[in-house]
Amino acid sequence: MNTERMDRMRTAMEMQGLDVLVCRLPENVLMLSGYWPLCGWVFFLFPLEGKPICILPDTEKHEAAAELWDSECSIYPFGTIGAGNQFEHIGNALREAAGSRDWKRVGYEGNFESIAPAWNAAELYIPARRTYAHIAEVFGEDNLVDATELICVQRACKTPYEIQKLQVVNDISCIGLETFMNTVRPGKTGVELSAAVESSVMTGGTGYHEARRVRAFAQVAVGTAETSIAYRPMEISTMRRLESGDIALLELAVVADGFWSDRTRACVAGVPTAQQVEINDILKIAQNEAIEAVKSGSTGGDVDRAARRIVEDAGHVKHFVHITGHGVGFGYHESLPLIAPESRDVLQAGMVHSVEPGIYFPELGGIRIEDDVLVTENGREVLGQFGRDLEQ
Amino acid sequence: MNTERMDRMRTAMEMQGLDVLVCRLPENVLMLSGYWPLCGWVFFLFPLEGKPICILPDTEKHEAAAELWDSECSIYPFGTIGAGNQFEHIGNALREAAGSRDWKRVGYEGNFESIAPAWNAAELYIPARRTYAHIAEVFGEDNLVDATELICVQRACKTPYEIQKLQVVNDISCIGLETFMNTVRPGKTGVELSAAVESSVMTGGTGYHEARRVRAFAQVAVGTAETSIAYRPMEISTMRRLESGDIALLELAVVADGFWSDRTRACVAGVPTAQQVEINDILKIAQNEAIEAVKSGSTGGDVDRAARRIVEDAGHVKHFVHITGHGVGFGYHESLPLIAPESRDVLQAGMVHSVEPGIYFPELGGIRIEDDVLVTENGREVLGQFGRDLEQ
Repeated sequence: MNTERMDRMRTAMEMQGLDVLVCRLPENVLMLSGYWPLCGWVFFLFPLEGKPICILPDTEKHEAAAELWDSECSIYPFGTIGAGNQFEHIGNALREAAGSRDWKRVGYEGNFESIAPAWNAAELYIPARRTYAHIAEVFGEDNLVDATELICVQRACKTPYEIQKLQVVNDISCIGLETFMNTVRPGKTGVELSAAVESSVMTGGTGYHEARRVRAFAQVAVGTAETSIAYRPMEISTMRRLESGDIALLELAVVADGFWSDRTRACVAGVPTAQQVEINDILKIAQNEAIEAVKSGSTGGDVDRAARRIVEDAGHVKHFVHITGHGVGFGYHESLPLIAPESRDVLQAGMVHSVEPGIYFPELGGIRIEDDVLVTENGREVLGQFGRDLEQ
Repeated sequence: MNTERMDRMRTAMEMQGLDVLVCRLPENVLMLSGYWPLCGWVFFLFPLEGKPICILPDTEKHEAAAELWDSECSIYPFGTIGAGNQFEHIGNALREAAGSRDWKRVGYEGNFESIAPAWNAAELYIPARRTYAHIAEVFGEDNLVDATELICVQRACKTPYEIQKLQVVNDISCIGLETFMNTVRPGKTGVELSAAVESSVMTGGTGYHEARRVRAFAQVAVGTAETSIAYRPMEISTMRRLESGDIALLELAVVADGFWSDRTRACVAGVPTAQQVEINDILKIAQNEAIEAVKSGSTGGDVDRAARRIVEDAGHVKHFVHITGHGVGFGYHESLPLIAPESRDVLQAGMVHSVEPGIYFPELGGIRIEDDVLVTENGREVLGQFGRDLEQ
């Protein structure tokens, strides 16, 4: 049980005068309850005082029983004949919960536009206007407070429990990185490499340190044309085959029980050229320098500058087109801290963020190296250490 | 180019007096534009008269160029240093679009609570209150009309172009079913089976009939305890190993270029028992009868009854706990048509829905057989035919 998370959240709520937080997004339900919803039609009411209340479908009661910390449960029928309308059930459960407590100021997730999927990533149950209307009707429109910023700020600093989970998912991601390095060779396609990486993460990661639900989302850009635009938020693996000397670039998201890692590695099919090695070495140094700059009290701008200066000195800064990093943990990308030019986000112990310098030449292709770094009291720690050379 | 879709949608809009549809969800953008967003921060404005307008990030311009039907494009910078705030860009682009046309009544996606992911299923950009506020500010709150029902009704009947896409994704899903049947044996875990199925669909499906972006989401329940609750909307693959005589039950979602299939098969590790074969035979007959009942003019209740009667006659109706089917296509599950007891949804040519009778015994485990069926002018067609026996 993550009592530190609860204590911190209650302190933050008290400072903003909130009596309760109404969470509906799987990532926030997970953070405050320990339970990672399978599908997503779950509400978690986290009050300043008294026991939390979890409203969940009966089809997920096994997982809730195994994962949910001390909470009152309101279980509604779902997905079977005669289960009725889930909106009615949820409305009734919310009304009952509200009626049993004396809550005035109610925080809710008003503005999360970037969200993580629940376990079932093939389909999302998102809060649309009907859900907002429910919340407004039950708690009273005037009592609602958008708690998006409060939640994001609290999420940015991970507790020891959460850090252990992020250590696990980063360790698991190394299985995928290893498969990638072992599988890249002339003739392989980006699609084949993605499939091999995802498969190895699921089979090798499930059960690692008791991880129950593990999935990878891998994308592999292959060759000059594909890697030169691999700074995009999402690459596409294709049927193009690696030729000798081509770069393969793996962008890898892994989720283990709701906790996410974000890694990138490059590997050359065959023997890397001197120029490829040179660019990779610049990025290794840039990443080293950025990681060295990570410490409690530094800003995101400081860390970005440390990486960008190396790339600039090497004469390639105009090809380092993106930010140096972003928060990661309850989602693939978190808004805090932002590791970018001019970012004034102040690093604090417990924050976890990516450090991912990249250089992309239109004619030669692109390389990026990405790891997740934990800010500690005395410096930093790279989660799930893994080699950064261009060949196995 | 899917002109039939556009014509139908314009007719429906005209009947409801809508001047334009504002689509932000990837599944509806795909339906009306041909372009399946990678990430999701895309707006597609589909007017009753004049060319549609697509507002998209520059990081997806290659895909838009390849996929988007005839439209005006407004491309905003995204994801690179100096790109600025995407909400500002989108707001400006929406204002510019609105200013250039004379739109009074504006339909929008007010109440989609169940949505399909964009290509990047690891992270969703969903419309939260900020996006709704943008739309309200640009078009005027009083001009907005919730077009959720209009869109869902229109989506239910697929056009010939869309039917061809659904044929392709159902063919591709057979690759996963085949891998499953070939891989089930004593000693295998649900996680291993899931990984093998997903991997084979990605590698075997990409490129099939020019499919560009293919992904599977497989879940395999194994043995009595797991399959007896496999009526749940989402199973969990575990590290439990198949023992001789155990049932493995595969729930398989596949997406190819934004079009979804939903299939289920059971397979026994080793030789099936007489009882397992008996239950499977009942389900084959129940599925046959339901499929026979599928025709233009029938109701969802008629089709459900055809399946349920067989299970009832066999004495197992209380273990057939879920509906017989649901729409499928632009998402893993669509609201129309509902194939359930008392459903009055009238089947029409072009609808595609699952037919998935299942029987689940607490002590013996569960079996379900699921295929996607197209309603035709003269009957029906099962998409992606595949055997239904319990052993390879």
